Amino acid sequence: MQIINKNIKILIVGLGLIGGSYAKALRKKGFYVTAITNDQKSIDYALNEKIIDEGYDYVNEKAVSDAELVVFALYPNVFVEWVKQHGHLFSKGTIITDVTGVKQCIVYDIQNSLPQGVEFIAAHPMAGKEVYGVENSDDKIFEGANYIVVPTEKNTPEAIETCKDLGKVMGFNRISVLSPEEHDKMIGFVSQLTHVIAVGLMTCSDNEHLVDYTGDSFRDLTRIARINENMWSELFMLNKDALLKQFDTFIEECNTLRTMIKEEDTERLKEKMRLSTKRRSLFDKK
Amino acid sequence: MQIINKNIKILIVGLGLIGGSYAKALRKKGFYVTAITNDQKSIDYALNEKIIDEGYDYVNEKAVSDAELVVFALYPNVFVEWVKQHGHLFSKGTIITDVTGVKQCIVYDIQNSLPQGVEFIAAHPMAGKEVYGVENSDDKIFEGANYIVVPTEKNTPEAIETCKDLGKVMGFNRISVLSPEEHDKMIGFVSQLTHVIAVGLMTCSDNEHLVDYTGDSFRDLTRIARINENMWSELFMLNKDALLKQFDTFIEECNTLRTMIKEEDTERLKEKMRLSTKRRSLFDKK
Repeated sequence: MQIINKNIKILIVGLGLIGGSYAKALRKKGFYVTAITNDQKSIDYALNEKIIDEGYDYVNEKAVSDAELVVFALYPNVFVEWVKQHGHLFSKGTIITDVTGVKQCIVYDIQNSLPQGVEFIAAHPMAGKEVYGVENSDDKIFEGANYIVVPTEKNTPEAIETCKDLGKVMGFNRISVLSPEEHDKMIGFVSQLTHVIAVGLMTCSDNEHLVDYTGDSFRDLTRIARINENMWSELFMLNKDALLKQFDTFIEECNTLRTMIKEEDTERLKEKMRLSTKRRSLFDKK
Repeated sequence: MQIINKNIKILIVGLGLIGGSYAKALRKKGFYVTAITNDQKSIDYALNEKIIDEGYDYVNEKAVSDAELVVFALYPNVFVEWVKQHGHLFSKGTIITDVTGVKQCIVYDIQNSLPQGVEFIAAHPMAGKEVYGVENSDDKIFEGANYIVVPTEKNTPEAIETCKDLGKVMGFNRISVLSPEEHDKMIGFVSQLTHVIAVGLMTCSDNEHLVDYTGDSFRDLTRIARINENMWSELFMLNKDALLKQFDTFIEECNTLRTMIKEEDTERLKEKMRLSTKRRSLFDKK
């Protein structure tokens, strides 16, 4: 069942890597895509490359009130501010979604800031790249990727379906539903903790010749160590408690493994490796 | 300068993923490649796929004494045992090299076990895959990869050059030289520590639905968590001291980052991220 009809007017706020990739995917499917971002260069690029149909480097009131489906692809704090300042411009019936990497700290706040009849249904596309800006936007990053819809008790079944449908339209592989609390716990582990580990691997040793000796293992574990420090420090702070909890679990496991190595307890070490192999093998299935 | 001539007789001992990939690369370049491995099925497969010219599932004395360049691609302890048992079969002038992932604990031992005039020059190809066996062998894994020659004071300049040349012939991108001690320290970090971390990430949390939510970050950091428990526990034990030292450095850095997050010290956290980004960017150059 296709809920989103092709004539729906889509507005994307924030035309960076993810906003641009959403625009690209949606325009290719025949949707009319308008964008608002704070940078005329990004608008010019996106118009020129036919990533969007229409764009503004300011809050164009008509574009906002005309929009029927809005995707916010901004930093979390900027997103909350934007809605508080301009949320009254949305028309009744508009559905708003987002791509933000943290949920509890923004979802309730935004749902409470919006006018009656304008519904915010949160989502998190588990896709990205270690580069930034609309110039790097690429809708192929959604292929085979996971998409998580994050409703609260305030959301209607219709908005949840529309949000799932948006994920399908853009080509995501697997669409799941989590509560904001479950989402933040999970994301503290699979996304934020992995970024901390990658950074730690790059910063704990200052061997500048490493690049001459390294193999793919180290390259893989540090790909995400090229990190946007403003975005990620904001994400870490907004999900601090969940991240610290996951970090502790990981450090504890490191200490357990360290003891096994130190004590040459190869039997228990092999058991851990067999468990790891078994669990990881699930990730190769599509 | 090409030191290795095309008529040299190459023997590969151990026809697994790496031995098979060496054979494939060398045979493609026109070398006559013989293999000895403990499994007739692997020999049959390799003959059938034209990965080798000749093969034995036992220690064929003529194949050993005819060989002029020998590559050992066995587990470390099996390698040492093999040389102690059969090393007397090598002819004077033979150059022996290997692909073993640890060096101090085997190099001196093997150099002392070999007869006069048979020279062992250690090497470590920094290439691999998380699959095993000659059936998965693939000489493309050497493209763009690093190759490390690991001489001791006993090695002649000629053998070192031959070993470097072998790396060039097989298509490695960068060829470096490290002492066994430097090698083991470095490998404890870029290879062994990364495998421990990947295993720890998979074993510290038992959320079986993770695969539904995960993004590329977690997939990248755990690719090597599918691990051959026999080989890697042996490698860890043989390089225990260096690995534990690197592990401690990493855990200490984790604790530093944890404190920065806990205390919301975003300025120092951003500094770490900028350093990490700067260092990692070097790895993208070819």
